[in-house]
Amino acid sequence: MSDYNNSIGNTRAQVVDGFWTTYQKLVRDVVIPYQWDALNDRIDEAEPSHAIENFRIAAGRQQGEHHGMVFQDSDVTKWIEAVAYQLSGAGDSTYEAIVDEVVELIGAAQQEDGYLNTYFTVKAPADRWSNLAECHELYCAGHLIEAAVAYYQATGKTALLEIARRLTDHIDHVFGPAPGQLRGYPGHPEIELALTRLYEVTNEERYLRLCRFFVEERGRTPHFYDEEYARRGHTFYWHSHGPAWMIKDRAYSQAHEPIVQQTKAVGHAVRLLYLYTGVAHLARLSNDTQQAAACHRIWDNLTQRQMYVTGGVGAQSHGEALASDYDLPSDTAYAESCASIALVMFARRMLELTPEARYADVMERALYNTVLAGMALDGRHFFYVNPLEVHPSDLAGNHLYDHVKAVRQRWFGCACCPPNIARILGALDQYIYLLRQDVLYVNLYIGSDLRFEVAGKTWHLQQRGNYPWQGKISFTLRGHESVSLTLALRMPDWCAAPEVWVNGERFESEASMLAGYLRVEREWSEGDRVDVILPMSPVRLRAHPAVRKLAGKVAVQRGPIVYCLEQADNGTELHQLALAQTAVFTEVDGQGALEGMVQLKTEGLRLATVDPEQPQSLYSQAAAPRPSAQTLTFTPYFAWANRGEGEMRVWVDER
Amino acid sequence: MSDYNNSIGNTRAQVVDGFWTTYQKLVRDVVIPYQWDALNDRIDEAEPSHAIENFRIAAGRQQGEHHGMVFQDSDVTKWIEAVAYQLSGAGDSTYEAIVDEVVELIGAAQQEDGYLNTYFTVKAPADRWSNLAECHELYCAGHLIEAAVAYYQATGKTALLEIARRLTDHIDHVFGPAPGQLRGYPGHPEIELALTRLYEVTNEERYLRLCRFFVEERGRTPHFYDEEYARRGHTFYWHSHGPAWMIKDRAYSQAHEPIVQQTKAVGHAVRLLYLYTGVAHLARLSNDTQQAAACHRIWDNLTQRQMYVTGGVGAQSHGEALASDYDLPSDTAYAESCASIALVMFARRMLELTPEARYADVMERALYNTVLAGMALDGRHFFYVNPLEVHPSDLAGNHLYDHVKAVRQRWFGCACCPPNIARILGALDQYIYLLRQDVLYVNLYIGSDLRFEVAGKTWHLQQRGNYPWQGKISFTLRGHESVSLTLALRMPDWCAAPEVWVNGERFESEASMLAGYLRVEREWSEGDRVDVILPMSPVRLRAHPAVRKLAGKVAVQRGPIVYCLEQADNGTELHQLALAQTAVFTEVDGQGALEGMVQLKTEGLRLATVDPEQPQSLYSQAAAPRPSAQTLTFTPYFAWANRGEGEMRVWVDER
Repeated sequence: MSDYNNSIGNTRAQVVDGFWTTYQKLVRDVVIPYQWDALNDRIDEAEPSHAIENFRIAAGRQQGEHHGMVFQDSDVTKWIEAVAYQLSGAGDSTYEAIVDEVVELIGAAQQEDGYLNTYFTVKAPADRWSNLAECHELYCAGHLIEAAVAYYQATGKTALLEIARRLTDHIDHVFGPAPGQLRGYPGHPEIELALTRLYEVTNEERYLRLCRFFVEERGRTPHFYDEEYARRGHTFYWHSHGPAWMIKDRAYSQAHEPIVQQTKAVGHAVRLLYLYTGVAHLARLSNDTQQAAACHRIWDNLTQRQMYVTGGVGAQSHGEALASDYDLPSDTAYAESCASIALVMFARRMLELTPEARYADVMERALYNTVLAGMALDGRHFFYVNPLEVHPSDLAGNHLYDHVKAVRQRWFGCACCPPNIARILGALDQYIYLLRQDVLYVNLYIGSDLRFEVAGKTWHLQQRGNYPWQGKISFTLRGHESVSLTLALRMPDWCAAPEVWVNGERFESEASMLAGYLRVEREWSEGDRVDVILPMSPVRLRAHPAVRKLAGKVAVQRGPIVYCLEQADNGTELHQLALAQTAVFTEVDGQGALEGMVQLKTEGLRLATVDPEQPQSLYSQAAAPRPSAQTLTFTPYFAWANRGEGEMRVWVDER
Repeated sequence: MSDYNNSIGNTRAQVVDGFWTTYQKLVRDVVIPYQWDALNDRIDEAEPSHAIENFRIAAGRQQGEHHGMVFQDSDVTKWIEAVAYQLSGAGDSTYEAIVDEVVELIGAAQQEDGYLNTYFTVKAPADRWSNLAECHELYCAGHLIEAAVAYYQATGKTALLEIARRLTDHIDHVFGPAPGQLRGYPGHPEIELALTRLYEVTNEERYLRLCRFFVEERGRTPHFYDEEYARRGHTFYWHSHGPAWMIKDRAYSQAHEPIVQQTKAVGHAVRLLYLYTGVAHLARLSNDTQQAAACHRIWDNLTQRQMYVTGGVGAQSHGEALASDYDLPSDTAYAESCASIALVMFARRMLELTPEARYADVMERALYNTVLAGMALDGRHFFYVNPLEVHPSDLAGNHLYDHVKAVRQRWFGCACCPPNIARILGALDQYIYLLRQDVLYVNLYIGSDLRFEVAGKTWHLQQRGNYPWQGKISFTLRGHESVSLTLALRMPDWCAAPEVWVNGERFESEASMLAGYLRVEREWSEGDRVDVILPMSPVRLRAHPAVRKLAGKVAVQRGPIVYCLEQADNGTELHQLALAQTAVFTEVDGQGALEGMVQLKTEGLRLATVDPEQPQSLYSQAAAPRPSAQTLTFTPYFAWANRGEGEMRVWVDER
């Protein structure tokens, strides 16, 4: 890749979209207030978080012990970041004064030298920076930096940014290749992506250098995890998978080899994706082709061999981790909500690095399926784990399913998913467009108003539609002077016959396709209109033949939405249902909790039936039972488990 | 059941059978000598066992520490029991002198008061009997008793029996309902079944009473595990699944409720089956209808809802345990070899309790499939775990499969399976027949010579055939005086059209069928001959519709043998292979490692193919690929993984 251009334009838009506004409103009205109560230990049914209290104790304003996880601080800063997106978006300033108070408290908890972490300040001040493999100090710093950048961008206020910079300068002092500095890097990546963001608002080269240092040190030998482990006398913090497992299992934190040598997506899924989000950002900013190549390799391995059809990643519960190529079990899947959120973040950095529609295809798949599935339609219940097949009566009996829930839960001991969902839904406007010189890429079809600059001129783009339920999207351009601009419209991978119309005339597409975008290159005038028509016939997806669990099975998708069968519509023993190869789908309007959604009906088969009247042998030589006809009703996967507990499955036998 | 008759005749036979003799020879020539070397730490590639050394230390003949598991002693006594069956069988006395020396050593390690356990004697003499939930003292005692009974029965020597009785008398003194006695019971059942055996050779009622005490105390509240846990200050021994988990998870050791209230097979599979083997034996000996009813309930739940088609039990790795009804995943199955051995033992006790052929059907299924699969055809390598689907390239990548091996291993840290295989194969002659008054039940079709007593007369039954490969079995009866006897021949559940011929005449079967046996009731004379013809056409088995993982799939069985597909014959991606509903099987002679076995060939389909030349998308809308014809070759499951590492699967899609 020699034609990098590392400058991208500002494309933050205003979301004006029936589908997403509902979710954004839930975040604003339900999730953020609930989280604020949680951070302050005011939720009766949840374990106290202690997160704000920890800052008070670290600030010397309250007596007491630190409570909660070693990364408890990040719950506060992720919440601030989520609030920041609200402030920059609809302009709801309900929480601005509260954030300002929290910022003041955080500042008070910061140490003289810039250090800031309540766990170590309160509990073990002498042990600072002594256990990077396990103890999340740099991870918490990363979330503080992200919050600071977002809050500054939303409000122009610099107090939190100053705190973040003092902390970063302290880190820059402690870490580095010079004698007396630590040549370490975080066990949980996050600061890498945060430092690139900090660089973008401050233009301080040293932040980029520090980021590059963390990226380049990773996986070097002698191994830093061993060195610090020996230095502190072989103590360890986590023992859930055996003594010092987090130190010894380097691949868990992608520290098994230098990043530029890595070829496979391995280890803890969120760690992997936060890391590569940072690396992709850094590679673009520093025009590093080797790092960019590593990003492409990891992306390809991850999305072409290890991703669920729902955009979920992380096939195994143990270590919340990736598994092997093509090993994608549906019922024991981990597919953490946060991992798909991180996949959306990584996809955006890949688009910025190399604008190819396939990155946005994955972004869309993750966003509309697993990320949304993470939150109930009431905004009050969450899935941490998103399997593609759930059979409630099996869950309690086999520890294989210990991580699986059949209904969304109110909150989690490790509260990473709900705040992350709030962050990503609040920042949705950052994912829709990408502006590189005179090319405006449309990556997501989300109703929105964009103001952008091209060739020194200010223009407006209005996007309207009823996506993801309808495939007709209209764009109107407004600007005082005409402008030469390429509007690059993503033609989604799921759409067989897209059409584009410019001012009422069909736009010839074949010659204008590049990397999955249809490029409408012209001189635009005020009021020009582009219509994109993406026919949304339901389609069947088949998995690669190497995917052992999915042979002979199909998943149903319409537009970007992956569907599933639920017990509420189809009865029990969903595993006995099959789809005929010739079956035709009918679209029906969802009712009740599913109002506004499209469900799909088709004629299917029930291969065999449990007969409660007559005991059936566990194994029998009886002839194959005659399949009976049964109407199958498919529901958007993201909306499953909003109608009580029941069976669910995405992949269905095809007969 | 009101017509219990608790007396059963002696039906130990001489095995004269091509198929089994091979295995018994392996046990004699390979397994037993190898184990003896292992017990004496003379195997280079294995971790030292320390098992004999522990006895030397406990006997004061050597200085040192106890090493190995808390149940290490049982490796020695299980070995003695296996040797005993050799001595009582073919009369090979190679190891008799060695056993006598070991018995002398064991006697020297026994304490003044009869106590005998090297772990506590060497390591923590003050802690005797303080942790029954976790520490296996009664389990080890059970294995010592079993060895003593077997060795006495084989040789008439009483030294080990005396040691066992002194130990049992000590236990009888420590445990019981009287003040000052412990009202405890073992965390790992085994002594129950041993005590019934001890009772049968000694006729001492107190051993039966002690057995009943252990059975009846189990699951009572206040819970004994809690009481002893409190008494010893909340210390615990096992922490692999969290602190004190073995104490807290009562169902793991079937101590969650009294046995006469239990309705479902739960917990550690071997514990469950050892326990109910003992309970069924006790129920017969003491004519206890409530305990018998519990055995029937557990049997039915286990074999009709939780047993693999291979006779494997224990669907989950965590706790080597049962799971939920109908939750029988193939690739993550535990299905421990020892659990199927214990199922064979339980089945025999159920037959003795209530002679119904269905118990023997399960016994046969477990024996010819999972038990045999536990040992390689070379007698030198063993599977501890017996899944029904293995995909070697997935194993390392997902901790779901941590317990699964794709090739049999030389030995195990916890060496329970190889000695247990040696015990069951050596004692095979005890499982073939059952004599109750004047009914001689034939439960297994294993070539053998039986001498039995009926109505005061001594008779001989000779069974010959080439089972399990051919379904023609001949019986010849010999005796000086004619005798009135019912020969009850099991008509196996897998056989649709069995025939029985008596002295060359077809025997009318319908009116003579009872509980799965065809009863030939007549006055027998010297030289009478019975021919049983069990046509062995390959059949397809289908699972109960509630078994989620097996919808639309079939297993292939011929005679008692369950078949599988192996990569060695069928290439990779076995999951893409399917069987047409109309496909006809051809029997072919196995070659090489499979010589002497019947393989099955049929025309099948390959639904989709991995194309190494052309990258295929992970998910695609492409039309269903056209299946291609492929000959499928099925191999006996028990013989899988004897031709190198490769994929294997039992359940195949049917199209």
